Amino acid sequence: MEIDYSDIKVIGFDADDTLWVNETYFRETEEHFASLLDGYETKNKIDQELFKKEMENLELYGYGIKGFTLSMIESALEISNNKVSQATLGTILNLGKKMISHPVELLDGVKEVLHALKDKYRLIVLTKGDLLDQERKLGRSSLSTYFHHVEVLSDKKEENYQNLLDHLEIDVNEFLMIGNSLKSDVLPIINIGAKAVHVPFHTTWQHEEVPVENQNGNYLTIHNLTEILMYL
Amino acid sequence: MEIDYSDIKVIGFDADDTLWVNETYFRETEEHFASLLDGYETKNKIDQELFKKEMENLELYGYGIKGFTLSMIESALEISNNKVSQATLGTILNLGKKMISHPVELLDGVKEVLHALKDKYRLIVLTKGDLLDQERKLGRSSLSTYFHHVEVLSDKKEENYQNLLDHLEIDVNEFLMIGNSLKSDVLPIINIGAKAVHVPFHTTWQHEEVPVENQNGNYLTIHNLTEILMYL
Repeated sequence: MEIDYSDIKVIGFDADDTLWVNETYFRETEEHFASLLDGYETKNKIDQELFKKEMENLELYGYGIKGFTLSMIESALEISNNKVSQATLGTILNLGKKMISHPVELLDGVKEVLHALKDKYRLIVLTKGDLLDQERKLGRSSLSTYFHHVEVLSDKKEENYQNLLDHLEIDVNEFLMIGNSLKSDVLPIINIGAKAVHVPFHTTWQHEEVPVENQNGNYLTIHNLTEILMYL
Repeated sequence: MEIDYSDIKVIGFDADDTLWVNETYFRETEEHFASLLDGYETKNKIDQELFKKEMENLELYGYGIKGFTLSMIESALEISNNKVSQATLGTILNLGKKMISHPVELLDGVKEVLHALKDKYRLIVLTKGDLLDQERKLGRSSLSTYFHHVEVLSDKKEENYQNLLDHLEIDVNEFLMIGNSLKSDVLPIINIGAKAVHVPFHTTWQHEEVPVENQNGNYLTIHNLTEILMYL
Protein backbone atom coordinates (compact mmCIF):
# COMPACT_ATOMS: atom_id res chain seq x y z
CA MET A 1 0.00 0.00 0.00
CA GLU A 2 1.32 3.39 -1.01
CA ILE A 3 1.97 5.61 2.01
CA ASP A 4 0.54 9.11 1.83
CA TYR A 5 2.90 11.84 3.04
CA SER A 6 0.69 14.80 2.11
CA ASP A 7 -0.22 15.65 5.74
CA ILE A 8 3.40 15.74 6.94
CA LYS A 9 4.50 19.10 8.36
CA VAL A 10 7.34 18.15 10.71
CA ILE A 11 10.22 15.78 9.91
CA GLY A 12 12.41 14.32 12.67
CA PHE A 13 15.86 13.12 11.72
CA ASP A 14 17.87 10.69 13.77
CA ALA A 15 21.51 11.85 13.86
CA ASP A 16 24.02 9.01 14.46
CA ASP A 17 24.33 6.89 11.29
CA THR A 18 21.52 8.85 9.64
CA LEU A 19 23.11 12.30 9.26
CA TRP A 20 26.70 11.31 10.09
CA VAL A 21 28.90 8.25 10.69
CA ASN A 22 28.90 6.89 14.24
CA GLU A 23 28.71 3.13 14.63
CA THR A 24 31.86 2.66 12.56
CA TYR A 25 33.93 4.38 15.27
CA PHE A 26 32.49 2.09 17.94
CA ARG A 27 33.40 -0.95 15.81
CA GLU A 28 36.94 0.37 15.28
CA THR A 29 37.32 1.01 19.00
CA GLU A 30 36.06 -2.48 19.84
CA GLU A 31 38.68 -3.92 17.47
CA HIS A 32 41.36 -1.93 19.22
CA PHE A 33 40.01 -2.94 22.63
CA ALA A 34 40.14 -6.64 21.67
CA SER A 35 43.72 -6.29 20.43
CA LEU A 36 44.74 -4.70 23.75
CA LEU A 37 43.38 -7.76 25.60
CA ASP A 38 44.84 -10.26 23.14
CA GLY A 39 46.11 -13.27 25.09
CA TYR A 40 43.55 -13.17 27.90
CA GLU A 41 40.67 -14.46 25.77
CA THR A 42 39.72 -15.08 22.13
CA LYS A 43 38.63 -12.03 20.17
CA ASN A 44 35.13 -13.46 19.95
CA LYS A 45 34.87 -13.89 23.71
CA ILE A 46 36.23 -10.37 24.34
CA ASP A 47 33.60 -8.91 21.97
CA GLN A 48 30.86 -10.85 23.75
CA GLU A 49 32.00 -9.85 27.22
CA LEU A 50 32.21 -6.18 26.34
CA PHE A 51 28.71 -6.24 24.87
CA LYS A 52 27.36 -8.03 27.95
CA LYS A 53 28.99 -5.41 30.16
CA GLU A 54 27.45 -2.58 28.11
CA MET A 55 24.00 -4.15 28.44
CA GLU A 56 24.51 -4.69 32.17
CA ASN A 57 25.43 -1.01 32.60
CA LEU A 58 22.89 0.45 30.17
CA GLU A 59 20.29 1.29 32.78
CA LEU A 60 22.91 3.06 34.90
CA TYR A 61 25.02 4.76 32.21
CA GLY A 62 22.59 5.20 29.31
CA TYR A 63 23.84 5.64 25.75
CA GLY A 64 27.01 7.42 24.70
CA ILE A 65 30.79 7.29 24.65
CA LYS A 66 31.45 7.98 28.34
CA GLY A 67 29.37 5.01 29.47
CA PHE A 68 30.99 2.89 26.75
CA THR A 69 34.46 3.86 28.00
CA LEU A 70 33.56 2.99 31.60
CA SER A 71 32.24 -0.38 30.39
CA MET A 72 35.47 -1.03 28.47
CA ILE A 73 37.53 -0.41 31.61
CA GLU A 74 35.33 -2.62 33.77
CA SER A 75 35.33 -5.33 31.12
CA ALA A 76 39.14 -5.19 30.73
CA LEU A 77 39.56 -5.67 34.49
CA GLU A 78 37.19 -8.63 34.50
CA ILE A 79 38.41 -10.36 31.34
CA SER A 80 42.02 -10.19 32.59
CA ASN A 81 41.19 -11.07 36.21
CA ASN A 82 42.66 -7.70 37.23
CA LYS A 83 45.91 -8.45 35.36
CA VAL A 84 45.51 -5.88 32.54
CA SER A 85 48.29 -3.31 32.90
CA GLN A 86 47.67 0.18 34.19
CA ALA A 87 49.18 1.53 30.97
CA THR A 88 46.60 -0.40 28.94
CA LEU A 89 43.79 1.08 31.05
CA GLY A 90 45.22 4.50 30.26
CA THR A 91 45.13 3.58 26.57
CA ILE A 92 41.46 2.62 26.90
CA LEU A 93 40.67 6.02 28.46
CA ASN A 94 42.34 7.60 25.45
CA LEU A 95 40.32 5.48 23.01
CA GLY A 96 37.20 7.05 24.54
CA LYS A 97 38.61 10.56 24.30
CA LYS A 98 39.56 9.98 20.68
CA MET A 99 35.99 8.93 19.88
CA ILE A 100 34.57 12.05 21.54
CA SER A 101 36.85 14.35 19.60
CA HIS A 102 36.48 12.56 16.27
CA PRO A 103 35.66 14.89 13.35
CA VAL A 104 32.08 14.63 12.04
CA GLU A 105 31.71 12.83 8.69
CA LEU A 106 28.38 13.59 7.02
CA LEU A 107 26.69 10.78 5.11
CA ASP A 108 26.02 11.05 1.36
CA GLY A 109 23.35 13.48 0.28
CA VAL A 110 22.55 14.84 3.75
CA LYS A 111 23.09 18.52 2.95
CA GLU A 112 21.27 18.25 -0.36
CA VAL A 113 18.24 16.63 1.29
CA LEU A 114 18.06 19.11 4.18
CA HIS A 115 18.42 22.00 1.77
CA ALA A 116 15.60 20.68 -0.41
CA LEU A 117 13.23 20.10 2.54
CA LYS A 118 13.94 23.05 4.80
CA ASP A 119 11.40 25.51 3.38
CA LYS A 120 8.55 23.05 3.02
CA TYR A 121 8.82 21.31 6.42
CA ARG A 122 9.84 22.01 9.98
CA LEU A 123 12.97 19.91 10.47
CA ILE A 124 14.07 18.69 13.89
CA VAL A 125 16.85 16.40 15.16
CA LEU A 126 15.88 13.62 17.56
CA THR A 127 18.80 11.73 18.95
CA LYS A 128 19.89 9.81 22.01
CA GLY A 129 23.27 9.70 23.74
CA ASP A 130 25.30 12.27 25.60
CA LEU A 131 23.76 15.74 25.38
CA LEU A 132 27.11 17.54 25.16
CA ASP A 133 28.44 15.07 22.63
CA GLN A 134 25.43 15.42 20.33
CA GLU A 135 25.41 19.24 20.61
CA ARG A 136 29.10 19.26 19.72
CA LYS A 137 28.58 17.02 16.69
CA LEU A 138 25.73 19.18 15.44
CA GLY A 139 27.88 22.27 15.90
CA ARG A 140 30.76 20.71 13.97
CA SER A 141 28.49 19.37 11.25
CA SER A 142 27.47 22.87 10.07
CA LEU A 143 23.91 21.54 9.79
CA SER A 144 22.47 23.55 12.69
CA THR A 145 20.91 26.17 10.43
CA TYR A 146 18.59 23.62 8.83
CA PHE A 147 16.93 22.63 12.09
CA HIS A 148 14.23 24.36 14.14
CA HIS A 149 14.89 22.27 17.19
CA VAL A 150 17.27 19.65 18.52
CA GLU A 151 16.16 17.21 21.15
CA VAL A 152 18.43 14.71 22.85
CA LEU A 153 16.33 11.94 24.41
CA SER A 154 17.54 9.56 27.12
CA ASP A 155 15.88 6.76 25.14
CA LYS A 156 13.76 6.37 22.00
CA LYS A 157 10.77 4.42 23.13
CA GLU A 158 7.12 5.13 22.31
CA GLU A 159 6.71 7.05 25.55
CA ASN A 160 9.71 9.31 24.85
CA TYR A 161 8.36 10.17 21.39
CA GLN A 162 4.82 10.72 22.61
CA ASN A 163 6.01 13.10 25.36
CA LEU A 164 8.13 15.01 22.89
CA LEU A 165 5.35 15.42 20.33
CA ASP A 166 3.03 16.62 23.12
CA HIS A 167 5.63 19.06 24.39
CA LEU A 168 6.37 20.47 20.92
CA GLU A 169 2.64 20.47 20.11
CA ILE A 170 3.10 18.35 16.99
CA ASP A 171 0.12 16.37 15.72
CA VAL A 172 1.00 12.69 15.31
CA ASN A 173 -0.50 12.66 11.78
CA GLU A 174 1.78 15.46 10.70
CA PHE A 175 5.00 13.84 11.91
CA LEU A 176 7.50 11.78 9.92
CA MET A 177 10.66 10.28 11.45
CA ILE A 178 13.68 9.30 9.34
CA GLY A 179 16.43 7.10 10.76
CA ASN A 180 18.69 4.10 10.44
CA SER A 181 17.43 2.12 13.43
CA LEU A 182 14.28 0.03 13.05
CA LYS A 183 14.17 -0.43 16.80
CA SER A 184 14.62 3.22 17.79
CA ASP A 185 13.56 5.35 14.82
CA VAL A 186 10.89 3.35 13.00
CA LEU A 187 8.88 0.82 15.04
CA PRO A 188 8.03 3.02 18.08
CA ILE A 189 7.02 5.83 15.70
CA ILE A 190 4.63 3.60 13.77
CA ASN A 191 3.23 2.28 17.03
CA ILE A 192 2.19 5.76 18.14
CA GLY A 193 0.53 6.40 14.78
CA ALA A 194 3.11 8.64 13.11
CA LYS A 195 5.04 7.83 9.91
CA ALA A 196 8.60 6.59 9.55
CA VAL A 197 11.20 6.02 6.86
CA HIS A 198 14.02 3.53 7.38
CA VAL A 199 17.45 4.29 5.89
CA PRO A 200 19.66 1.35 6.96
CA PHE A 201 23.33 2.02 7.67
CA HIS A 202 25.80 -0.72 6.74
CA THR A 203 26.66 -1.35 10.40
CA THR A 204 24.10 -1.87 13.18
CA TRP A 205 24.87 -2.15 16.88
CA GLN A 206 23.76 -5.54 18.20
CA HIS A 207 21.54 -3.77 20.76
CA GLU A 208 19.59 -2.09 17.95
CA GLU A 209 18.96 -5.28 15.94
CA VAL A 210 15.36 -6.40 15.41
CA PRO A 211 14.44 -10.06 14.67
CA VAL A 212 13.14 -10.51 11.09
CA GLU A 213 9.68 -11.56 12.30
CA ASN A 214 9.26 -8.19 14.04
CA GLN A 215 10.36 -6.05 11.12
CA ASN A 216 6.88 -5.86 9.59
CA GLY A 217 5.04 -2.60 9.52
CA ASN A 218 3.85 0.06 7.19
CA TYR A 219 7.02 2.02 6.60
CA LEU A 220 9.18 2.89 3.64
CA THR A 221 12.77 1.64 3.35
CA ILE A 222 15.24 3.58 1.22
CA HIS A 223 18.94 2.98 0.69
CA ASN A 224 20.19 6.50 0.31
CA LEU A 225 18.73 9.53 2.07
CA THR A 226 18.32 11.37 -1.26
CA GLU A 227 15.62 8.88 -2.32
CA ILE A 228 13.30 10.53 0.18
CA LEU A 229 12.99 13.48 -2.20
CA MET A 230 10.95 11.29 -4.58
CA TYR A 231 8.27 10.97 -1.90
CA LEU A 232 8.15 14.38 -0.23
CA MET B 1 16.34 48.57 45.94
CA GLU B 2 13.31 46.32 46.35
CA ILE B 3 12.95 43.89 43.44
CA ASP B 4 9.50 43.71 41.86
CA TYR B 5 8.32 40.17 41.10
CA SER B 6 4.81 41.10 39.95
CA ASP B 7 5.51 40.37 36.26
CA ILE B 8 6.87 36.88 36.88
CA LYS B 9 4.93 34.10 35.16
CA VAL B 10 7.52 31.33 34.81
CA ILE B 11 9.91 30.12 37.51
CA GLY B 12 12.95 27.99 36.67
CA PHE B 13 14.42 25.85 39.42
CA ASP B 14 17.93 24.51 39.39
CA ALA B 15 17.90 20.89 40.61
CA ASP B 16 21.23 19.75 42.15
CA ASP B 17 21.67 21.37 45.59
CA THR B 18 18.54 23.47 45.07
CA LEU B 19 15.82 20.78 45.05
CA TRP B 20 17.95 17.88 46.32
CA VAL B 21 21.39 17.11 47.77
CA ASN B 22 24.17 16.55 45.22
CA GLU B 23 27.51 18.19 45.99
CA THR B 24 27.74 16.35 49.32
CA TYR B 25 28.05 13.00 47.47
CA PHE B 26 30.85 14.35 45.30
CA ARG B 27 32.70 15.52 48.44
CA GLU B 28 32.23 12.11 50.09
CA THR B 29 33.47 10.34 46.97
CA GLU B 30 36.50 12.62 46.77
CA GLU B 31 37.31 11.74 50.40
CA HIS B 32 37.08 8.06 49.55
CA PHE B 33 39.19 8.56 46.42
CA ALA B 34 41.92 10.31 48.43
CA SER B 35 41.96 7.50 51.00
CA LEU B 36 42.38 4.93 48.19
CA LEU B 37 45.48 6.78 46.99
CA ASP B 38 46.85 7.36 50.49
CA GLY B 39 50.62 6.92 50.39
CA TYR B 40 51.19 8.19 46.84
CA GLU B 41 50.59 11.86 47.70
CA THR B 42 49.22 14.05 50.49
CA LYS B 43 45.44 14.33 50.67
CA ASN B 44 45.70 17.96 49.69
CA LYS B 45 47.72 17.19 46.57
CA ILE B 46 45.34 14.36 45.58
CA ASP B 47 42.35 16.74 45.87
CA GLN B 48 44.13 19.32 43.75
CA GLU B 49 45.17 16.86 41.07
CA LEU B 50 41.68 15.41 40.76
CA PHE B 51 40.17 18.88 40.41
CA LYS B 52 42.78 19.80 37.78
CA LYS B 53 41.95 16.64 35.85
CA GLU B 54 38.22 17.41 35.99
CA MET B 55 38.86 20.90 34.60
CA GLU B 56 41.14 19.54 31.90
CA ASN B 57 38.43 17.08 30.83
CA LEU B 58 35.42 19.38 31.24
CA GLU B 59 35.25 20.44 27.60
CA LEU B 60 35.35 16.80 26.49
CA TYR B 61 33.21 15.14 29.16
CA GLY B 62 30.90 17.92 30.32
CA TYR B 63 29.21 17.79 33.74
CA GLY B 64 28.01 14.66 35.50
CA ILE B 65 29.04 11.52 37.30
CA LYS B 66 30.30 9.51 34.31
CA GLY B 67 32.84 12.17 33.36
CA PHE B 68 33.81 12.54 37.02
CA THR B 69 34.43 8.78 37.28
CA LEU B 70 36.59 8.78 34.13
CA SER B 71 38.57 11.70 35.58
CA MET B 72 39.07 9.81 38.87
CA ILE B 73 40.50 6.82 37.01
CA GLU B 74 42.82 8.95 34.89
CA SER B 75 43.91 10.90 37.94
CA ALA B 76 44.57 7.72 39.97
CA LEU B 77 46.80 6.37 37.18
CA GLU B 78 48.74 9.65 37.01
CA ILE B 79 49.07 10.31 40.75
CA SER B 80 50.40 6.77 41.31
CA ASN B 81 52.60 6.71 38.21
CA ASN B 82 50.57 3.73 36.98
CA LYS B 83 51.16 1.87 40.24
CA VAL B 84 47.60 2.01 41.61
CA SER B 85 46.24 -1.54 41.78
CA GLN B 86 43.69 -2.88 39.32
CA ALA B 87 41.46 -3.73 42.28
CA THR B 88 41.54 -0.08 43.38
CA LEU B 89 40.54 1.03 39.89
CA GLY B 90 37.61 -1.38 40.12
CA THR B 91 36.68 0.23 43.44
CA ILE B 92 36.74 3.67 41.77
CA LEU B 93 34.36 2.43 39.05
CA ASN B 94 32.04 1.29 41.83
CA LEU B 95 32.22 4.67 43.60
CA GLY B 96 30.82 6.19 40.41
CA LYS B 97 28.06 3.59 40.16
CA LYS B 98 27.13 4.15 43.78
CA MET B 99 26.78 7.88 43.14
CA ILE B 100 24.51 7.26 40.14
CA SER B 101 22.22 4.96 42.10
CA HIS B 102 22.16 7.09 45.26
CA PRO B 103 18.63 7.75 46.62
CA VAL B 104 17.36 11.29 46.13
CA GLU B 105 17.27 13.42 49.32
CA LEU B 106 15.03 16.46 48.95
CA LEU B 107 16.14 19.68 50.62
CA ASP B 108 14.05 21.32 53.35
CA GLY B 109 10.82 22.93 52.28
CA VAL B 110 11.02 21.94 48.60
CA LYS B 111 7.65 20.18 48.38
CA GLU B 112 5.93 22.91 50.39
CA VAL B 113 7.30 25.64 48.11
CA LEU B 114 6.43 23.83 44.87
CA HIS B 115 2.98 23.10 46.15
CA ALA B 116 2.40 26.73 47.07
CA LEU B 117 3.62 28.06 43.73
CA LYS B 118 2.32 25.51 41.24
CA ASP B 119 -1.06 27.10 40.52
CA LYS B 120 0.14 30.67 40.25
CA TYR B 121 3.25 30.10 38.09
CA ARG B 122 4.51 27.82 35.35
CA LEU B 123 7.32 25.88 37.05
CA ILE B 124 10.20 24.37 35.08
CA VAL B 125 13.43 22.56 36.01
CA LEU B 126 16.65 23.79 34.42
CA THR B 127 19.64 21.66 35.18
CA LYS B 128 22.96 20.58 33.72
CA GLY B 129 24.67 17.21 33.88
CA ASP B 130 23.84 13.80 32.45
CA LEU B 131 20.41 13.74 30.85
CA LEU B 132 19.59 10.19 32.00
CA ASP B 133 20.88 10.89 35.49
CA GLN B 134 18.77 14.01 35.92
CA GLU B 135 15.65 12.35 34.50
CA ARG B 136 16.15 9.49 36.91
CA LYS B 137 16.56 11.81 39.90
CA LEU B 138 13.43 13.73 39.00
CA GLY B 139 11.52 10.47 38.64
CA ARG B 140 12.70 9.25 42.04
CA SER B 141 12.05 12.63 43.68
CA SER B 142 8.28 12.39 43.12
CA LEU B 143 8.38 16.08 42.14
CA SER B 144 7.62 15.54 38.43
CA THR B 145 3.96 16.49 38.79
CA TYR B 146 4.85 20.03 39.84
CA PHE B 147 6.75 20.86 36.67
CA HIS B 148 5.52 21.78 33.20
CA HIS B 149 8.85 21.13 31.62
CA VAL B 150 12.30 19.78 32.40
CA GLU B 151 15.31 20.91 30.44
CA VAL B 152 18.79 19.51 30.85
CA LEU B 153 21.32 21.96 29.45
CA SER B 154 24.89 21.08 28.48
CA ASP B 155 25.96 24.29 30.23
CA LYS B 156 24.34 27.25 31.99
CA LYS B 157 25.78 30.27 30.27
CA GLU B 158 23.86 33.31 29.05
CA GLU B 159 23.61 31.85 25.57
CA ASN B 160 22.10 28.56 26.84
CA TYR B 161 19.45 30.43 28.84
CA GLN B 162 18.63 32.83 26.02
CA ASN B 163 18.17 29.97 23.55
CA LEU B 164 15.95 28.13 25.98
CA LEU B 165 13.71 31.14 26.72
CA ASP B 166 13.38 31.73 22.96
CA HIS B 167 12.53 28.10 22.34
CA LEU B 168 9.93 27.97 25.13
CA GLU B 169 8.63 31.41 24.12
CA ILE B 170 9.15 32.88 27.57
CA ASP B 171 9.51 36.66 27.87
CA VAL B 172 12.69 37.57 29.73
CA ASN B 173 10.72 39.97 32.00
CA GLU B 174 8.42 37.20 33.10
CA PHE B 175 11.17 34.75 34.08
CA LEU B 176 12.65 34.10 37.50
CA MET B 177 15.41 31.57 38.13
CA ILE B 178 16.06 30.07 41.58
CA GLY B 179 19.26 28.19 42.35
CA ASN B 180 22.25 27.61 44.58
CA SER B 181 25.00 28.57 42.12
CA LEU B 182 25.80 32.25 41.64
CA LYS B 183 27.87 31.37 38.59
CA SER B 184 25.31 29.14 36.86
CA ASP B 185 21.89 30.09 38.18
CA VAL B 186 22.10 33.77 39.09
CA LEU B 187 24.68 35.91 37.25
CA PRO B 188 23.97 34.75 33.65
CA ILE B 189 20.23 35.18 34.31
CA ILE B 190 20.66 38.77 35.50
CA ASN B 191 22.92 39.49 32.55
CA ILE B 192 20.19 38.55 30.06
CA GLY B 193 17.69 40.77 31.90
CA ALA B 194 15.67 38.16 33.79
CA LYS B 195 15.38 37.86 37.60
CA ALA B 196 17.18 35.46 39.92
CA VAL B 197 17.10 34.33 43.53
CA HIS B 198 20.17 32.83 45.16
CA VAL B 199 19.71 30.02 47.73
CA PRO B 200 23.26 29.05 48.76
CA PHE B 201 23.93 25.42 49.66
CA HIS B 202 26.47 24.75 52.42
CA THR B 203 28.89 23.12 49.97
CA THR B 204 29.95 24.66 46.64
CA TRP B 205 32.08 22.95 44.00
CA GLN B 206 35.29 24.92 43.45
CA HIS B 207 34.41 25.26 39.74
CA GLU B 208 31.19 27.11 40.66
CA GLU B 209 32.82 29.60 43.02
CA VAL B 210 32.64 33.31 42.17
CA PRO B 211 35.20 35.84 43.50
CA VAL B 212 33.64 38.26 46.01
CA GLU B 213 34.22 41.28 43.76
CA ASN B 214 32.03 39.68 41.05
CA GLN B 215 29.14 38.77 43.32
CA ASN B 216 27.42 42.14 42.93
CA GLY B 217 24.14 42.38 41.14
CA ASN B 218 20.50 42.99 41.70
CA TYR B 219 19.35 39.65 43.08
CA LEU B 220 17.80 38.38 46.25
CA THR B 221 19.64 35.94 48.53
CA ILE B 222 17.63 33.68 50.83
CA HIS B 223 18.86 30.94 53.14
CA ASN B 224 16.01 28.52 52.95
CA LEU B 225 13.83 27.95 49.89
CA THR B 226 10.65 28.56 51.90
CA GLU B 227 11.61 32.24 52.32
CA ILE B 228 10.75 32.76 48.65
CA LEU B 229 7.08 32.52 49.61
CA MET B 230 7.37 35.92 51.33
CA TYR B 231 8.17 37.53 47.97
CA LEU B 232 6.00 35.64 45.46
